[in-house]
Amino acid sequence: MPRNDDKLAPEISVSQWFNTPAPLSLEILRGRVVLLHSFQLLCPGCVADAIPQIRRIERAFASTDLAIIGLHTVFEHHEAMSPVTLAAFLHEYRIRYPVGVDQPGEDGPLPLTMRRYGLRGTPSSVLIGRDGTVLHHAFGVEDDIAVGARIAMALAHPAPVADCEADIRSADGCDNGSCVIP
Amino acid sequence: MPRNDDKLAPEISVSQWFNTPAPLSLEILRGRVVLLHSFQLLCPGCVADAIPQIRRIERAFASTDLAIIGLHTVFEHHEAMSPVTLAAFLHEYRIRYPVGVDQPGEDGPLPLTMRRYGLRGTPSSVLIGRDGTVLHHAFGVEDDIAVGARIAMALAHPAPVADCEADIRSADGCDNGSCVIP
Amino acid sequence: MPRNDDKLAPEISVSQWFNTPAPLSLEILRGRVVLLHSFQLLCPGCVADAIPQIRRIERAFASTDLAIIGLHTVFEHHEAMSPVTLAAFLHEYRIRYPVGVDQPGEDGPLPLTMRRYGLRGTPSSVLIGRDGTVLHHAFGVEDDIAVGARIAMALAHPAPVADCEADIRSADGCDNGSCVIP
Amino acid sequence: MPRNDDKLAPEISVSQWFNTPAPLSLEILRGRVVLLHSFQLLCPGCVADAIPQIRRIERAFASTDLAIIGLHTVFEHHEAMSPVTLAAFLHEYRIRYPVGVDQPGEDGPLPLTMRRYGLRGTPSSVLIGRDGTVLHHAFGVEDDIAVGARIAMALAHPAPVADCEADIRSADGCDNGSCVIP
Repeated sequence: MPRNDDKLAPEISVSQWFNTPAPLSLEILRGRVVLLHSFQLLCPGCVADAIPQIRRIERAFASTDLAIIGLHTVFEHHEAMSPVTLAAFLHEYRIRYPVGVDQPGEDGPLPLTMRRYGLRGTPSSVLIGRDGTVLHHAFGVEDDIAVGARIAMALAHPAPVADCEADIRSADGCDNGSCVIP
Repeated sequence: MPRNDDKLAPEISVSQWFNTPAPLSLEILRGRVVLLHSFQLLCPGCVADAIPQIRRIERAFASTDLAIIGLHTVFEHHEAMSPVTLAAFLHEYRIRYPVGVDQPGEDGPLPLTMRRYGLRGTPSSVLIGRDGTVLHHAFGVEDDIAVGARIAMALAHPAPVADCEADIRSADGCDNGSCVIP
Repeated sequence: MPRNDDKLAPEISVSQWFNTPAPLSLEILRGRVVLLHSFQLLCPGCVADAIPQIRRIERAFASTDLAIIGLHTVFEHHEAMSPVTLAAFLHEYRIRYPVGVDQPGEDGPLPLTMRRYGLRGTPSSVLIGRDGTVLHHAFGVEDDIAVGARIAMALAHPAPVADCEADIRSADGCDNGSCVIP
Repeated sequence: MPRNDDKLAPEISVSQWFNTPAPLSLEILRGRVVLLHSFQLLCPGCVADAIPQIRRIERAFASTDLAIIGLHTVFEHHEAMSPVTLAAFLHEYRIRYPVGVDQPGEDGPLPLTMRRYGLRGTPSSVLIGRDGTVLHHAFGVEDDIAVGARIAMALAHPAPVADCEADIRSADGCDNGSCVIP
């Protein structure tokens, strides 16, 4: 099946990496399933719900070639969530998977990758298939069973062309823990 | 691929059905993925953990042809967990999927299906593929992500021949909620 | 301070006791704070919420003279929740505090003590002071902090005359786990 | 009963206040029960366990004169947990009670109040009676029922002279969420 380049996941732009010896890119990871996990360290829903779920995903798929990439997509309180604070956060929360700081935008508070993907806020996640296409993206934290099912299918198959969005939370501001871009 | 009859899931023996207009059997359900959920109504781990997980499975796979079958596998306190009590239990816990009473054994406390499958206690689950073979069985409650992954794979594929066992709990008696056959 | 006999907690009527060498009564327990815990073994909210809270109360007040008394107040599915089933339930759930079967009513489904206290359903609790007066009764499960505060105050003081009711759940039927008398 | 000045809670030293129109002190709060809640914004156990418990305490004792005071006792990663980051943290977590930044120490990483009280790490709490004496201090998060009981007793009585310590967690480093002074 020919790859539909229109559906290719846009490349990520990262200004600083943690937990990886060398910079990463989707290009480098092509051929593997990639779970992009967008968060902010001061986002309550990220800390309480999304990061623990990422841990469970790490454990459940430890024997596979799933690549989990954290993306610190700061869109508010920029001064409060600097890389120095992120480094301490990753240390205290014992986060071992690679985490990139989303490249700050030049004209506005939204960082580049976040804007490129049209993410609505944090936590968000994007599942990218072995062929580099976006399989699923979600704002908020989805049910573990559905998440497990979706990743397993992505690992088993060359990614079908599909693009759907699930909005778990219709919050505005940081109601209920997740943070929405104003 | 020729079906390996040696791996065929043994038929279930049920003395009384609830929540189904007609008796069920694995033979009737052949072609669908079947999740056999073995429980006892007085087993704490069944009530606190396994039944809520079954609800989440129902929800996550509502749009698929997954068949969930409860099996009341009483191996102790038989008089306390009669079908009359089971009927009230199903009503109070709003359980809507078909539930069968495992056929009482003639020589000993273990009911027939439970013995046939070699279940170690409750809660237990058996995942049966579209071709009628056992894909997985577990004693205790497994992680939601792993469960979601496994069911999704079973729904996507004709079942490969596989037989493995996961023992979540190594309890004896009803320690930690699950109940082990003495 | 003279005791206000109008506020005296009505005596409990029990047809069968478990976990106690001799029958109990409020008369016998006079001078101690008594927590009456009304439940049904097939009431989901009792099993999931109220009984675990009773365990935490037991632990927190283990060094005091608080008396915890379970009362099996069956008002529906009588045949399903017989003393035989209750005995197995207490065994499986490892309940060690004294539990009495509320005396069945002669004309109607409500047992005697439940009717005498005007309980609205299960789970319910009644806190009785050292002087035998009702300090508090609640339908549903209240917040642990408030419960801890209330019991501590009762243990510290001769009970003031007070009678209030908190309705945690306004369920009807067994919505949300608790069961309401029809 | 004469006040035992030896048991008086040492005064707190705060370099910056949030959520209060004017600086606070134990001297100013004398006559009220004070709950000092020591935390760090990057301490997992503070965020997951202690701060939610403080919210429940706020709710349960809303109608009393209990004073809850947060104390940001940073003893590691100082640069990562600056007042700018704390301000955003309080905003995102919707913390409304007064919070003071513990005065940085001059010789070493421990801030002044933390050292003065001999706190072992975060989260910690200190309960101070109406007469200004320390009633209880704890490292880690204690059971809600016990916490509710202890605060209710403090509110009801002039504080008895008592000084005890409960160590909920014997962690070292940030194991299990709480952070121990190295």
